[in-house]
Parts: sequence; structure tokens; C-alpha cells
Amino acid sequence: MAFIKIVTVAFFVCIAISGVLGDEDPLQDFCVEDPNSNIFINEVPCKDPTTVTADDFTSTILRQGPVTNNTLRIQVDLIDITMFPGLNTQGLSIACLAFGPFGVNPPHNHPRVFAVIWLLQGRLYVGFVSTSNQLFTKVLHPGDLFIFPRGLVHFQRNLDNLDTVAVAVLGSQNPGRIDMARVLFQTTPNIMNEVLEAALQVDENEIDNLRHGVSRT
Amino acid sequence: MAFIKIVTVAFFVCIAISGVLGDEDPLQDFCVEDPNSNIFINEVPCKDPTTVTADDFTSTILRQGPVTNNTLRIQVDLIDITMFPGLNTQGLSIACLAFGPFGVNPPHNHPRVFAVIWLLQGRLYVGFVSTSNQLFTKVLHPGDLFIFPRGLVHFQRNLDNLDTVAVAVLGSQNPGRIDMARVLFQTTPNIMNEVLEAALQVDENEIDNLRHGVSRT
Amino acid sequence: MAFIKIVTVAFFVCIAISGVLGDEDPLQDFCVEDPNSNIFINEVPCKDPTTVTADDFTSTILRQGPVTNNTLRIQVDLIDITMFPGLNTQGLSIACLAFGPFGVNPPHNHPRVFAVIWLLQGRLYVGFVSTSNQLFTKVLHPGDLFIFPRGLVHFQRNLDNLDTVAVAVLGSQNPGRIDMARVLFQTTPNIMNEVLEAALQVDENEIDNLRHGVSRT
Amino acid sequence: MAFIKIVTVAFFVCIAISGVLGDEDPLQDFCVEDPNSNIFINEVPCKDPTTVTADDFTSTILRQGPVTNNTLRIQVDLIDITMFPGLNTQGLSIACLAFGPFGVNPPHNHPRVFAVIWLLQGRLYVGFVSTSNQLFTKVLHPGDLFIFPRGLVHFQRNLDNLDTVAVAVLGSQNPGRIDMARVLFQTTPNIMNEVLEAALQVDENEIDNLRHGVSRT
Amino acid sequence: MAFIKIVTVAFFVCIAISGVLGDEDPLQDFCVEDPNSNIFINEVPCKDPTTVTADDFTSTILRQGPVTNNTLRIQVDLIDITMFPGLNTQGLSIACLAFGPFGVNPPHNHPRVFAVIWLLQGRLYVGFVSTSNQLFTKVLHPGDLFIFPRGLVHFQRNLDNLDTVAVAVLGSQNPGRIDMARVLFQTTPNIMNEVLEAALQVDENEIDNLRHGVSRT
Amino acid sequence: MAFIKIVTVAFFVCIAISGVLGDEDPLQDFCVEDPNSNIFINEVPCKDPTTVTADDFTSTILRQGPVTNNTLRIQVDLIDITMFPGLNTQGLSIACLAFGPFGVNPPHNHPRVFAVIWLLQGRLYVGFVSTSNQLFTKVLHPGDLFIFPRGLVHFQRNLDNLDTVAVAVLGSQNPGRIDMARVLFQTTPNIMNEVLEAALQVDENEIDNLRHGVSRT
Repeated sequence: MAFIKIVTVAFFVCIAISGVLGDEDPLQDFCVEDPNSNIFINEVPCKDPTTVTADDFTSTILRQGPVTNNTLRIQVDLIDITMFPGLNTQGLSIACLAFGPFGVNPPHNHPRVFAVIWLLQGRLYVGFVSTSNQLFTKVLHPGDLFIFPRGLVHFQRNLDNLDTVAVAVLGSQNPGRIDMARVLFQTTPNIMNEVLEAALQVDENEIDNLRHGVSRT
Repeated sequence: MAFIKIVTVAFFVCIAISGVLGDEDPLQDFCVEDPNSNIFINEVPCKDPTTVTADDFTSTILRQGPVTNNTLRIQVDLIDITMFPGLNTQGLSIACLAFGPFGVNPPHNHPRVFAVIWLLQGRLYVGFVSTSNQLFTKVLHPGDLFIFPRGLVHFQRNLDNLDTVAVAVLGSQNPGRIDMARVLFQTTPNIMNEVLEAALQVDENEIDNLRHGVSRT
Repeated sequence: MAFIKIVTVAFFVCIAISGVLGDEDPLQDFCVEDPNSNIFINEVPCKDPTTVTADDFTSTILRQGPVTNNTLRIQVDLIDITMFPGLNTQGLSIACLAFGPFGVNPPHNHPRVFAVIWLLQGRLYVGFVSTSNQLFTKVLHPGDLFIFPRGLVHFQRNLDNLDTVAVAVLGSQNPGRIDMARVLFQTTPNIMNEVLEAALQVDENEIDNLRHGVSRT
Repeated sequence: MAFIKIVTVAFFVCIAISGVLGDEDPLQDFCVEDPNSNIFINEVPCKDPTTVTADDFTSTILRQGPVTNNTLRIQVDLIDITMFPGLNTQGLSIACLAFGPFGVNPPHNHPRVFAVIWLLQGRLYVGFVSTSNQLFTKVLHPGDLFIFPRGLVHFQRNLDNLDTVAVAVLGSQNPGRIDMARVLFQTTPNIMNEVLEAALQVDENEIDNLRHGVSRT
Repeated sequence: MAFIKIVTVAFFVCIAISGVLGDEDPLQDFCVEDPNSNIFINEVPCKDPTTVTADDFTSTILRQGPVTNNTLRIQVDLIDITMFPGLNTQGLSIACLAFGPFGVNPPHNHPRVFAVIWLLQGRLYVGFVSTSNQLFTKVLHPGDLFIFPRGLVHFQRNLDNLDTVAVAVLGSQNPGRIDMARVLFQTTPNIMNEVLEAALQVDENEIDNLRHGVSRT
Repeated sequence: MAFIKIVTVAFFVCIAISGVLGDEDPLQDFCVEDPNSNIFINEVPCKDPTTVTADDFTSTILRQGPVTNNTLRIQVDLIDITMFPGLNTQGLSIACLAFGPFGVNPPHNHPRVFAVIWLLQGRLYVGFVSTSNQLFTKVLHPGDLFIFPRGLVHFQRNLDNLDTVAVAVLGSQNPGRIDMARVLFQTTPNIMNEVLEAALQVDENEIDNLRHGVSRT
């Protein structure tokens, strides 16, 4: 019986949790996000607390399965307050990481948070780079935890021809994500060529080539 | 093949993650706990950063399986900085919750944090109580997430005669745990009878009876 | 003359001050609570600062006397921003504790704050329990101060057949209060019996008995 | 009987409580100040927690009476962590304010905190000045509370020929105090005359006169 | 060519930057101040982020030159969020300090922040006073930096018969400024004479004289 | 005379100031960095306060001139607590940006802070990228200020064949810097090829080519 349960787990358990240090402390028991508010402030308005129910603290979004038949062979589902209103003022987000065969979560950082990853299934190569450009890497096995310190660039790669599933917790309700390749080569509008040519010491043709490559991810 | 992997997961994946709002922001890339320091301050001293390696950010502690043949039929493994030095200054802890048949995690709170629970396997009844004594409850199914707001009393109960496994993330590197039953009836030394008799409006014999009951959990 | 003054004091000086660590820092000179605002956020909206007067920073609420002829023989008056709008963003609350003969303030905690108590009159037995269930107690005399650390469960008992008066300061403008007995036995709706039976290792009849006792406090 | 108690109170109850917003959140149950530590950091080292007792959370310093026969006819006793080690990391200080006849607590501010004052006895004229130089004043009667917002300059004056007693709570464990008159005219060494002559538009003789006057307070 | 550029700089480069520790952490990429909002809270509402452009992050206000032909021979331009909406939630302000011959920036503090000053041109005498009334002073030359710690009273004086220009950074988006002379002698309404007579130990005539002097600054 | 002063400025005034939101609030008047301490904690130990002098709050490091005859034709001098001990606990850093003809400060971010740049001389093209990959750019003229929001990737380019000088303030005493090109192509050791090939969708030869280019910057 338990086996069947677990197999079911395999299809939805792509989850990653993350939280943001420095989010505001709560002043109330809770402040469930009000999706209808049109006030813009440096926090998120709450629902009238008298209308809050247990459903506001429950999310069933991860019961569904991931899709990994894309270029990078990865699906990242970030569960933040827009999908899970009860997370508001709790200071963290949860992410779902499903890797297809040899799938790659490319180098990126979260400008406002750290992340902790927990491997459920598969064999995952993970790494981060310190601000003095030192690379720290590890091969994780099921049950292993790994920390990506706050704001540092990190990546993961599935080492096998099998599905791999991990959970991440991010230390903010609004962690943000900056992909290194996209931020250089796929912005709207694009960064002027002269800046990238200087940064990478390559010519205009190679910049175009890189822009084309990244557009496919 | 994947099935076998997952079955393996079933034995160690009792994990609960939790983090503490209000922990100090990091000033360095990382501050890995120094287990040999004998300085007492309101934070935890770091290792010399030149001696830090990727192993400091990795924990394999959850590869082992839980034991739930106790009175409450539950094992809670809290992974904090003493077991996982890299968590220091990251502002969260991770907990492992394994429930045997009808196992109960009794009413408790974490005085410095909130918790998010994620159900991996089984059917779990969860609840928390607001400071105006309103009870919020839910029955969770695999893949569901539930939030216990900061500092509020909460509990879980396995509804079935099957093993149940959940992960929790707590918002501090040192969340603390206060069990309601223990804090009333099993402290060192015990709270004086007159205080409990007034609080519960029962006589000394019943206080003794409750002390005896709680001592068995 | 001074004697008469002081006697007057005796009737209203039941006061307890408390404040919340972690409340938001003020960005303005002041942010006096706006009682007419209908915006829900994780803080309290301010009055238009051009309409603020010295009255907003003054509270006369403690000129009145306490009533302690109830089951627990205690009156706790918490002065927060709803009664004292100028407290908004100042990060603390003030509480008034009046004990009749052998009155008890039952075990409780404030999920978001610490408290400091200052005994004005009488002889008071006070205690708190650490997260490792160690009990710390003391008998206070007039003029003594005692600290209940953040989030920890604490209580007080009047040791004499005389009125006792204390002041408390709580470290938040919205400290919250969780009574251990009520949170177990008097919530809306009640916690399911199986959870309490497991936590206390007593049967259903005793749970009913405890619910009945607590309902009288 | 109660009357006699209260009269006793009259001699020691000069107390002022204050706390500092922005102090660090505690990571442990408590961090009692270690008076023997010789480490200098931006916080205060703790005692070994295994040596902590209830005495560390108790202060009896206010049992003694104030002395107000000085030039300003006032005694201010600030109770901070050097006198009360358990206050460490709790984020507040407590102050004792005793005024002789027409005694004055001269204009000053606390650079890191707000203060709340609570009048126990007498009739007290209080005021503060906003950063736009608006003065807010009030006459307090026994039982009244008044708030001095964070960092703003404030003062008190006893309006009668009777002893007056107040309590203050300051929002930091290390609030600091800057007296406006002293900071201009009694520093070590003194501020150069040209600066004060420009600021006040008076000549050197008047600066000398003011220095002499302030030296007597 | 560069010389001419720089000469131009001389006329507008009166700039002082300051920032406030303790401002709220940003939860979004940015929160540009909404000048049309009429909500009063302890922060500043943001514009709809979809309407934000690069102009919101740009200020040209310092292209203009200072005027220093006043009594104190100084112009201080504080650039805060009302002039530069993009500063909102960034936690600092920038100030422009232009001194005419022997100009004086009189003793003052910022109740919510520290300041760092950077001397561009001239020779400047600077100082601050600790809370134990110790004076720290220095003569700065072009290119020198000097720190005024948080909340402490400080001043500057141009030592020469030449224009002097400095930049300051203040650690808050709303630092506030309290002038010691004004807060004593030029408030609305004025502080009662008895308070100042006690604080300074001078008579009513001298208080009047000082009020008259300060009114000319 | 003033002209000559200012010309002198031209050679050293390459300065950039930056500060970190979220640094710890100071509990003392100051905490000057102790360069001889060998304690590792998540903050920096202070000198014995009795040995502190005004020199600790003064830095003359920017009196010297920049060197910009390198590949990128830029010199960035970051003044942090190691060079300027008084900055400790003040929560900001200051940076000096000197650009030779068409010099480029390549795309980078500061994982823990925002930056404000102020152009002293020249014409500078600046830009940043939001987490939704929108590019915001501006051409700055002398006297203009521009904000790079917290953690977002940004760059600058000198648009002319003339020297350009700017000041930056960064919101932390330890902002950190991540260069996008280096973090991808010049780490120790290098990120494995497969990760970069997936992220950029180019082959191994191009990765080698890019590594070679970046090594020259």
C-alpha cells in the first residue's frame, strides 16, 4: 500500500522551499494576502481577518505533475503569495524542482534570499560561487540537504538519465530570480553590444550568437 | 527503476523544515558554525572562512529512517546548526516528522518562529489556534502545504493506520519548542499546585493524575 | 498630603507594560493610529500628521480602579494602540495587573514578545519555563523587577490575602496572549479529543472535566 | 495595611522604563550579560547559559529611595544591563524619575530610542519637540501615560512644591542620553567658540556665561 | 577640457549623502514613491510598478548652484524621496553642503541616522559629541571622509575665506534633523522659560537674548 | 584659486558610496573595527572604546589618483571597514569609480545591497535589469544621481573619449560584488562545461573562447 502512495508522490513531489531573511516581522497572528487590493506598498495588503479560513493556509498546487520536455529539461514551480495567500508576512517561498534526464537549472541567484535544497529522488550535482569567485560543488543523493547562501549564484544538474526531484525553501515571500545568461543576453531591450563586448572580450558576432542560444532556453 | 528509488525515499523522507523571522541578516557570504568556540553571544561564532568547504553546506542526516514505536507514535527530527553547521545565519531550521498509525504531534508552539508543513505521504489532520482561541483545522493529502503562523499553538494527527511522513520548515536557526502539556505538568521543578489548580479549576488529585499521564509521553 | 495622593494611586496603579522586539522602525517622527482607516496591512495606518496633538500621546485610562472579584481574582488591562493611538510604531504595550487575595495569572505566553514586570505593592510569586522545561521562579517584593524572556510561558500568584498590584511592559504594540489552559481546553471549536488524550494520556471523561473547569475561568 | 505598603512605595517608586526599537532579536531563550567578558562587539556577551538562575532576571535596585536636593532637584536612575544583566537582548531599559519641588529634567533626547513615561504621584508638565520644531506639551496627573517619540528632544517639570515620581520605559538596552545644554556647553574638550557664536548669534562672553551656568547642573 | 568640466562641478557639487539604518527591507525590485497617494502609513506608498521608468531612478536636482549669503553662510540641500521618488525603500538620503567663507553648520543631530561626509573642496573643521559628552574633532582636506555616528550631535565649520563643498550620505530615507539651538530657543510655541532657566542656569533676560539670536539664523 | 583646488579634486575624486540595508543596528555610540581580533562572527569586533580617537572616523585614502589603463579602462576602489575602521556598524560602503575613454564597468550585482551613483565629471551610460529582465537605462551628466535597486544587475559605460568620475554609496559595510561574466567563466575551479552549454546553448569551443576572453578583463 505504502509503495503505491509513494509512487504517486513521485509525480507531484517536485517542490522547492525558499524564504527571505529580512522580511518584515508580523504584527498580527496572520496577514493573508488580499488578491483584490489595488494599493501599492512595500508589503502586501491583507484580507479582512474576520474572513480568513483554514483554506487560506492550505495549498494543493503541488498535487499536479511537472513537465520537463523543454530545452533545459527542467520545471521550476515557485509557490509564492500569489498562489498561496497565507504565506504573506511568513517570510519564505517554496519551490518545486523537477529535472528530466541530464536536466540543468542554469546559473542564477535570488537577489533577496538564500535557498535550501533537499533532494527527494535521483542524483544531483549542485554548486554555488562565492563573491571571491570560489566554486563550491557537491553531488547529492536522496535525503541530502544543501545550502545556497544568500544572494550567491548557484546551479544544479541532473547527473543521470532518470527523473530527479528536489524541494527548495527560499528565505523570502518574494525572492526574485536573476538568470545569469538571460540577464546578459535576453533583456527587454537588450544591453548595448559595447558593454557585453567589453565584459566578455568577444566581438559582436559572438554576442549575437549567444543571444540566439539563450533565446532557446 | 524510479519506483525503487522512491521506495527508498519512503524510509528516510521524514523531514520538516522551519525558519525564524527576525534572525540576523548575514554580513558575509556565509558564517559556518564553529563547534569548538566557547564564546557565548546572541548568535553563533563562525569557523575561519578559509577552512570552509562544500561539506559544511551539506547534510546527509536524513538518509536514516525514523522510529515511531513510542507512546505518541511519532518521531520529530529537528535539523539545526548543531547538526548542520552551514545553516548558521541562514535563518531557518528543517524538521522531519514521521507518524506511526494514528500518531499525534501534541499541541506546541515555537516561541520564535512560524512553520510550514508539507505532507509527503499519508493523510494528516492539522490545526492551529489563534490568540483569540479560534481553531483552524484541515485534513491534508500528499503534496499539500499548510502554514502554522508565527508563535501560534498547533498540532497534527495521523488519521490512518498507515505511516505518514511530512516535512516542516521553521523560520529560525533556533526555533525552540514549547509543548503545552509538558510546560504545565512536566517541568523541573514542577509548577506549584495552586497555580495549576486555579488555571484549570481542578483539585490536587487531578493535577497529580495529569502529571503522571504527561510523564509517559 | 503625599499619603493621600499615594492612596489614590493604590486604586488605579494596576499597570503592566510590555513591548515587542521586531516591530518596525519608525520612518516618521510619529505615526498615530487612525481609528477610522479600513485598510488591512501588516502595520496600522496613521492619522494625517497635521491633525496630531499632544492628546494623541497621552492616555488617562489607568485612572480608574480594577475589579478582581472573579474566579482567578485578577484583572489584566492591556493598553495597546486601540486604547492609546500614540503607541503605534513605538513597539511596546503596557499592562495593568491587579491581584485580589491569592489571585493567579495563569500560565500563558506572548507569541511575539517578552515582558518586564515591576511590583508596586504586595508579595508576588512569579515564574517562567525555558524551552528545555526548566522552571525559574522568584518571590518579588515592592520595587522589584522581573523579566519573562521572549515567548516563554510564565505565570504569577499573589502569595497573600491582600491586594497586589504590578506593572508590565511588553515588547510589541500587538503582543498577543496565549493561555495554556484555554488553548488546550477552550477553543472555538474545541480541539478533537484524540489529540488531547494522546498529549495528556488521560481519557475522554477527564478531558471533559478539564474543559468544564477551564470554562469557569 | 495596604496604606502602609503604599507609603513605602512612595520612597522607592521613582522608576522610568524605556526600550530601544531596533535592538537585535534574541536567538536563544535568554542571553544574560556576562560582566567578566572582555570581548568588544556590537552587542553584549552572555554568561554560560548553564549558570543562569532566576536571580539574573530579578532586580531589587529600586527598593532604595531617591535624592533630589541638587541644582535641578531631580534624580534619574537608569536601569540598564550593567545593573540588571537579564535585560540583555530584551531590548529595553527602565528609568526612575524622582522630582523634588519644581524639579526639572532638562531638554534631552535618546539617540537610539523612544520613551514612555507613567506618572505615579504629583503633577508633571511634559513636552517634546518634533523635527519641524513644533512643541507638544501636556500636564499629567497620577496614572497618566505619555509618549516621547523616538529620538525627539523632550523634558519634564514638576509643577508643584511636592515630590513627584514617574516611571519611564526606554526602547533599548542602551538608549544613550544627550542633554541639549551639556552637548553645547559642557563637552570634553569644549566646542570651539566660533561654532557656538554662529549657532546662537551671541558673543564670546555670553558663551562663557552659559558654560558656567551649565557646569552647575 | 577636463578642467572646464570640473570648474562646472564646483558650482553644483554641494552634495551630502546620508542613509538610515533600520529602514524596512525591500520586498520588491523597487517601490518608487507615489506622490499622489493620500494613505498615511509608516512607510511611503509606491507607484504602480508598470508605470515606472528610468527617470524615477534619476535626479538632476544638483545641477544647480548653492546660495550661501545668509547668516550662517551655508546651504544644506537634503535630497529625499519627495525630490527623488526612486529613493523610496532604499534606506538613505543624500545631502549637499555648501559653505561660504567661515560658514558654520551648527550643532545638530539626525534622530534616526548616521551621516558620512566627504569633502570635495576647501578645508573643513568637523566634530561630534559622544553620549558621554566627549568631543571628537578633525580638520578635513579635499578627498577626506568623516563619519558622524548614529544620532550623535555634530557640526562643521569652514576654516577659510573660500567656498567649501561637501557631500553627505545619511542612513535613512527620512533622517530628520534636530538643531540644538532651535530646539531650545525657537520652537512653536516656545518651551516655557522655567525649563530653560533650570537647564542653563541663566535668568529670563538671557533666555530672551538667546531666543532673539537664534531667530536670526 | 578655487579652480586649482578643483583640478586637484579631479585626480582623486573617483569615489563611489554604497550601503547595505539590513546591517545590524548599533547598540553603542560606535563600534570601530578591531583589526587585530581573531574572533569570527557575523559582524566585526570593535576596538576597546576607550582607545578610539577622531582618526578612526577619518579616511584619507581617496586623496590618491586612479589608474585606468587596463582592459576595461576602469578603476573601482571600494572603501569598506578594512580600510576605514569607523564604518563598522554604520551600514554602508563608499566606492570610487574612475573611467578612462569608453571604459566599462561590466554587468554585476551586489548580493546584499543597493547602490546610488553620483556623476562628478563626464557623460555616463548606466543601466540595470529587473528580475523580469526589463532593462532600465539613462545617460547621466555631471551632478546627476542614479539608483541601482537592491541586488539587481547593473553596469556603466563612459560614452566619451574623456575621463569620467563617479561616486557610489552602497547600502552595507560588506556589499559583495558578483561579476556576471566572471561568475560564469572565471571561477576557481571552473563550472563544468555541461552546465554552461545548457545555459547558453553553445558548444564547448565557444565556452572555451568565452573563458579566454573573460580571463583578460
